[in-house]
Amino acid sequence: MTGGGEIERLIELMAKLPGLGPRSTRRAALALVKRRERLLVPLARAMAEVAEKVRLCRTCGNLATADECDICTDPRRDPGKICVVEDVADLWALERAAAFRGRYHVLGGLLSALDGITPESLRIPELTERARSPEITEVILAVGATVDGQTTAHVIADYLQGCEVEITSLAKGVPIGGELDYLDDGTISAALAARKAL
Amino acid sequence: MTGGGEIERLIELMAKLPGLGPRSTRRAALALVKRRERLLVPLARAMAEVAEKVRLCRTCGNLATADECDICTDPRRDPGKICVVEDVADLWALERAAAFRGRYHVLGGLLSALDGITPESLRIPELTERARSPEITEVILAVGATVDGQTTAHVIADYLQGCEVEITSLAKGVPIGGELDYLDDGTISAALAARKAL
Repeated sequence: MTGGGEIERLIELMAKLPGLGPRSTRRAALALVKRRERLLVPLARAMAEVAEKVRLCRTCGNLATADECDICTDPRRDPGKICVVEDVADLWALERAAAFRGRYHVLGGLLSALDGITPESLRIPELTERARSPEITEVILAVGATVDGQTTAHVIADYLQGCEVEITSLAKGVPIGGELDYLDDGTISAALAARKAL
Repeated sequence: MTGGGEIERLIELMAKLPGLGPRSTRRAALALVKRRERLLVPLARAMAEVAEKVRLCRTCGNLATADECDICTDPRRDPGKICVVEDVADLWALERAAAFRGRYHVLGGLLSALDGITPESLRIPELTERARSPEITEVILAVGATVDGQTTAHVIADYLQGCEVEITSLAKGVPIGGELDYLDDGTISAALAARKAL
C-alpha cells in the first residue's frame, strides 16, 4: 500500500465499521480522497461534531445532544407510554414507521448469560424506576422475536411486577406482504395461535 | 431520526460512500457513536490528516504525502518500466501481488466518449512525456479486459507511437483456480488463441 501511512491508517480504521469488507473499505477510502472538499473534509468535521456533542439521554438512553433527548423533551409525545427497545437502531425503525407517539427506553442490548450481560448493564433497573411513576400507564416490550429478545422481555416483565402498569408486547404473525409458503414454521404457528375474528 | 442534527448529518455524508446502503450506513454510524474513543475520534482525526496531507504524485498520479509518491522515489524500483493502471485501487492490487518492481502511471479513469473523458483528462500526455525519456524501456498497459479498458489501451499505444519503448499488455487467459465450465466464452477464446507449448 502506498500514499503514506495516513491512507493506511484511514483504511485500517474504516475496516472496523460493520458492513465494510477489505475491498469495499479500500474503495470507500479512495472515494473519500477523490472527493476531498465535498465528502472527506465535511465527513471528518461531522464525525468530530458527533464525538463532541452526542451522548446518551439520561432518561431513556437514546442519542441526545443535551441531557435529555428530543423525544423525552417533546411535549407532544404521550409521557404515559414507554416503548422498550434493544437499540437506538430499533428506535429509529419505530420512528420511521411513525406508529408510536409515546416515549422510549433503550436497553442497549439484550440479556445474554453467555456474554455476561446482566439486567443492570441493560438499564432495566432504570426502567423499573421510570415505570413506578404514576404517570406511566403502559410499557410496550418492542424487542425482537428471538430467544434472547423473548428472554429479556420475560425478565423485564418480572422486574415490573410491582409497578402499576400494563405490560404489552408486539404482535407476532405474518409480516405485511409475507407469503405463507416462504414463512418459517414458528411464524405460521404464532400467527395461527393469535388468529382474530375478521 | 433523533440524536440531533449531528447524527443525521453524519449518516447523510456516510451514505455517499460506495458500498454502504441506507441500513448499513445507520448501523455504521451507531457503531461509531458506541465506540467514540476507540473508533469515532481516531477516524475523524485520520480523515482530517488525509484531507490535509494526501495529494497526487506529480509524476505518476499515485497518492502521495510529498510531491512524489513512495514508489517514484524508491531507488530500489526499476525506473525503466512503467505500469499503466486505471486507478489507485489497481495499483494497490498489483502491489499486493508483489509481482512488479517498476514504477506506475495512474490514469485516473478510462477513456469514454459517452462520459466525455478525453486523453487529456486521463494524464495520457503526461505518460507520453515520461515515455520519451531514454531511461524508459517498457510501458505495460495493465488495464482491465473491458471495452473501455481495451479502447484506452489502444489509444495509449497510438500516443506512444513515436517513443522508443516496448509496449506490452497483461496476458489474457484462464484465471488461476478457474474452472473452464464457469468461464465466459470470451475468456475461453482468448485463452485458446494465446495457448502456449507446455
